[in-house]
Amino acid sequence: MDKLSVGLLGFGTVGTGVVHLLTNEQEKFRQQTGTQILINKILVKDPDKIRKIDQYNQLLTTEPSDIVDNPEIDIVIEVMGGIEESRKHIHTALKNKKHVITANKDLMALHGSELLQAAANQGCDLYYEASVGGGIPILRGLTDGLAADRIKKLIGIVNGTTNYILSKMSHHSVSYEEVLQEAQSLGFAESDPSSDVEGLDAARKMVILSHLAYSIPVTLDDVVVEGITHVAEEDILYSKKLGYTIKLVGIAELDNGEIDVRVAPTLLPTNHPLASVDNEYNAIYVYGHSVGETMFYGPGAGELPTAIAVVSDLISVAKNMKHGINGQHIFLPQNEKKLKPADSIESQYFLRLHVKDEPGALSKITGLFNEQEMSLQKVIQEPIVSKKLAEVVIITHTTNQQRFEQIYQLLADLDVVIDVKSNYRVEGMN
Amino acid sequence: MDKLSVGLLGFGTVGTGVVHLLTNEQEKFRQQTGTQILINKILVKDPDKIRKIDQYNQLLTTEPSDIVDNPEIDIVIEVMGGIEESRKHIHTALKNKKHVITANKDLMALHGSELLQAAANQGCDLYYEASVGGGIPILRGLTDGLAADRIKKLIGIVNGTTNYILSKMSHHSVSYEEVLQEAQSLGFAESDPSSDVEGLDAARKMVILSHLAYSIPVTLDDVVVEGITHVAEEDILYSKKLGYTIKLVGIAELDNGEIDVRVAPTLLPTNHPLASVDNEYNAIYVYGHSVGETMFYGPGAGELPTAIAVVSDLISVAKNMKHGINGQHIFLPQNEKKLKPADSIESQYFLRLHVKDEPGALSKITGLFNEQEMSLQKVIQEPIVSKKLAEVVIITHTTNQQRFEQIYQLLADLDVVIDVKSNYRVEGMN
Repeated sequence: MDKLSVGLLGFGTVGTGVVHLLTNEQEKFRQQTGTQILINKILVKDPDKIRKIDQYNQLLTTEPSDIVDNPEIDIVIEVMGGIEESRKHIHTALKNKKHVITANKDLMALHGSELLQAAANQGCDLYYEASVGGGIPILRGLTDGLAADRIKKLIGIVNGTTNYILSKMSHHSVSYEEVLQEAQSLGFAESDPSSDVEGLDAARKMVILSHLAYSIPVTLDDVVVEGITHVAEEDILYSKKLGYTIKLVGIAELDNGEIDVRVAPTLLPTNHPLASVDNEYNAIYVYGHSVGETMFYGPGAGELPTAIAVVSDLISVAKNMKHGINGQHIFLPQNEKKLKPADSIESQYFLRLHVKDEPGALSKITGLFNEQEMSLQKVIQEPIVSKKLAEVVIITHTTNQQRFEQIYQLLADLDVVIDVKSNYRVEGMN
Repeated sequence: MDKLSVGLLGFGTVGTGVVHLLTNEQEKFRQQTGTQILINKILVKDPDKIRKIDQYNQLLTTEPSDIVDNPEIDIVIEVMGGIEESRKHIHTALKNKKHVITANKDLMALHGSELLQAAANQGCDLYYEASVGGGIPILRGLTDGLAADRIKKLIGIVNGTTNYILSKMSHHSVSYEEVLQEAQSLGFAESDPSSDVEGLDAARKMVILSHLAYSIPVTLDDVVVEGITHVAEEDILYSKKLGYTIKLVGIAELDNGEIDVRVAPTLLPTNHPLASVDNEYNAIYVYGHSVGETMFYGPGAGELPTAIAVVSDLISVAKNMKHGINGQHIFLPQNEKKLKPADSIESQYFLRLHVKDEPGALSKITGLFNEQEMSLQKVIQEPIVSKKLAEVVIITHTTNQQRFEQIYQLLADLDVVIDVKSNYRVEGMN
């Protein structure tokens, strides 16, 4: 095996990064794998487009089967994105006994188990480190580095766009709309940002992480998802006053064999390591039964960081080929899925209310909590003179979701409460 | 291979953690490796000592050859510490074709290359994830997760004792001596803390990290080491005023094929992710040419975190045995060692001076920097009324070490300068 032949599906941002590395670091990779890695074909939509790298123009094709059915090609790298087409191509590649590397979180979140099973059946590798956390080697961290431990909780900042927006809102006191526009003009947010800002992208990554951390076949439908479009400047301001930062995090928690996975804007104490993960950076915070707390931090996206994850996978595949052990490192969920019921999902909560500016209003509110035997950790009341009302911000002690929802309803119905403006979970205290 | 037999050299803190995991997580490890992992013998000094775990008392031995020459044993776990004895035992174990896992940073820093070469010759595994960063999977991060990248710089908080001391000094404004005493009484520092507080422990870990990150055979003699015993409360106070935190960090930097490795108290900007790594936590910050900046964070020591690293290695060895690829993952330094000369080691510097409280003193000092064409980023002058002198604190712009040493000498010789109290590098700005 003195040469390995690679076909790329896609030549966009990540594809360009991969080609860049394979071109400039040939000698390094040859040293590491004992073999030369050569690009054979690259699938593109438009072969005539002007590209940053033009030395491979004679390898471009618009015909997928030039790659997935090409007997010369050993390894297929899928960096085209999308779901149905890439799913089909990967199945064909596996059927033809090609090893596959993908950076496609959408695909792996929706059809990961099916594709991994197909790879295992064929004795092929299917690696996807780049699908979560860009250049952060978090999937290997979970499957190898922390292999001996039982994970009890993961908290991840796994979407760069929303972290950029919330960081800017927090550091510069500007509104969601303003930052979104700026992020779009800088290329940090897509022109249609909905999959990012509504939390779907993060949810997909949490599905992938949950499979590896817990070996449980969580699906996207199991993930409770809340985006950041309704996060107000006031929420951020009051959080700061109380010593917290609002981040869009994914949380996957296993307790007594029951799992809960959610994505939502969440308050973290400002001294929590995740609270200082800013802008487009990602980080995954792992709570292990034995190891305690570890964190993996780095760039969550970008041409070269993501390409590093893809090519590190490629090096693993090449080594596996050398040792004849392809398809042996595939993790398929082994454990049964039991979702955690609302009355055992525990958390602290942040509430921001608009209340009538009249004597006894606050006392009615705290009275309700007292009556319901839910204790409060912090309370702020401030008048909003211009609107002739008062703003009350509350952080509860730990309670369960069911109890919280009951009290939320009672609060909303209270005569002195004009509106419950927002509520978020508070994490990272334990 | 339905059973694997393990012998432990040592039954102290880490050994107890390993035995705990192997006892309580048998079923999990059997699922992961397809084999049952059984403890065969445990080497101890005193078999009659009362232990936390007493169910293995009949497996205790005081005779090393019961383990390293025992044909029943497949894998030897060295958690006894020390250097010459453990080195001898590991050589014997390898000679007898046993795979070895060690948590011994001192041994790996001094004799790693020799032991790894012996393991490679025998076709045996030698893993040592636990030797750096306790439960943080940093060695795998460098060799697998970031395999495709070229590392240009590592900054590591790799010693928990000194990080605990500096954190407490910084957060509670107490002296080094007071915190050291407290740390000793709490068990965070040894009764003879010299190897920690003088930076030697961190230096050993930097040797191991440098081997893996750069594939260069750095030795302990190549590491410039400065401990924390002279870090004054004033240094910490002025650093804070200027927006920095002092941490004992190891820095390993490769540039133009030239390497520099050092351990020293260093200023980091307070918003740098390493600055908020507090108390006994460790973190390794990695600058890759392509990946950019990543960080691995977690508990740097402790019974169970360290045991997780050891047993994760054990799972790797078991999988390698299943696939018949032991000894294939040994990294021996491949590149030539060229140390960076002082005139190409670049950094910013912090200086704290005691100067005569007389008109024109500061101007003489800044005049000297001006004359020497070294520009200053920040200057503070404050009187110390009780001592009738003034304190001047300076942060320079980036310069090279040779130039800095020249200017340091000129400063010390200046008639208005009573004493240069301290000087540290300032890192993490690029």
